[in-house]
Amino acid sequence: MTGLAGCVLCESIGGRLVFEAPHFRVIHADEAGFPGFYRVIWRDHAAEFSDLSAAERSACMDAVAAVERCLREHLAPTKTNLAALGNMVPHLHWHVIARFEWDTRFPAPVWAAASRDRDVDREAIVAAQLPAAEAAMIAALSKRTS
Amino acid sequence: MTGLAGCVLCESIGGRLVFEAPHFRVIHADEAGFPGFYRVIWRDHAAEFSDLSAAERSACMDAVAAVERCLREHLAPTKTNLAALGNMVPHLHWHVIARFEWDTRFPAPVWAAASRDRDVDREAIVAAQLPAAEAAMIAALSKRTS
Repeated sequence: MTGLAGCVLCESIGGRLVFEAPHFRVIHADEAGFPGFYRVIWRDHAAEFSDLSAAERSACMDAVAAVERCLREHLAPTKTNLAALGNMVPHLHWHVIARFEWDTRFPAPVWAAASRDRDVDREAIVAAQLPAAEAAMIAALSKRTS
Repeated sequence: MTGLAGCVLCESIGGRLVFEAPHFRVIHADEAGFPGFYRVIWRDHAAEFSDLSAAERSACMDAVAAVERCLREHLAPTKTNLAALGNMVPHLHWHVIARFEWDTRFPAPVWAAASRDRDVDREAIVAAQLPAAEAAMIAALSKRTS
């Protein structure tokens, strides 16, 4: 493993671990108001997506697409959002976020100011579907990396 | 072409056209304060990244990586940011954004509230590098899609 001293994603899991493959891991992120918020974190330290080889980019985005597909199938979000920003933590990680028309920011990005209050009842309904979504992720990702 | 009536990205270019390939186009987005803001727009109407086939996803992300690489080489950004959100316009488009530590939001995402005033002098220096960056994009993308 290529780790960078002091990099939080080299030195910690970065969330609740859902799946670990040789080159990436999937975690559930505990982000208030967004129950269906996952991250695909590249194992080795790389700041930018274009630092990866074509084969690595393909493996990475195949995982992102698999996570997205499981969120769509199990959570039925209004939209999914994908982003690799890394301004704060420049270690390649993809946000894969199920968005709902009732969430606190929709249709704005999750990083914008809130436009409505949280709907904790609807959040709880989504949260109840996470185990099934994660079982599907594990099944899909295991098939890819076996 | 699979177009959807009423979809702004099916019915218009969506910015200043830099490059057009059979399955995607690259445009420069006129976003105040972010001179190095490009979008890779998938030609056919698809709402979600996981609606694409594996080969299509690969072609799409290869273009995103090529644009990112040209921004890095010619604009020397502090970080590049990638995102496919589509909450407002659910037609697959990737934001590819050169970010600088002096821009109005850094290190927050471009969609967050501004934390400082614009630095129009530095923006102009970046803008002056765009023709060279775009020439490099065209060369890189032409090689891929020929």
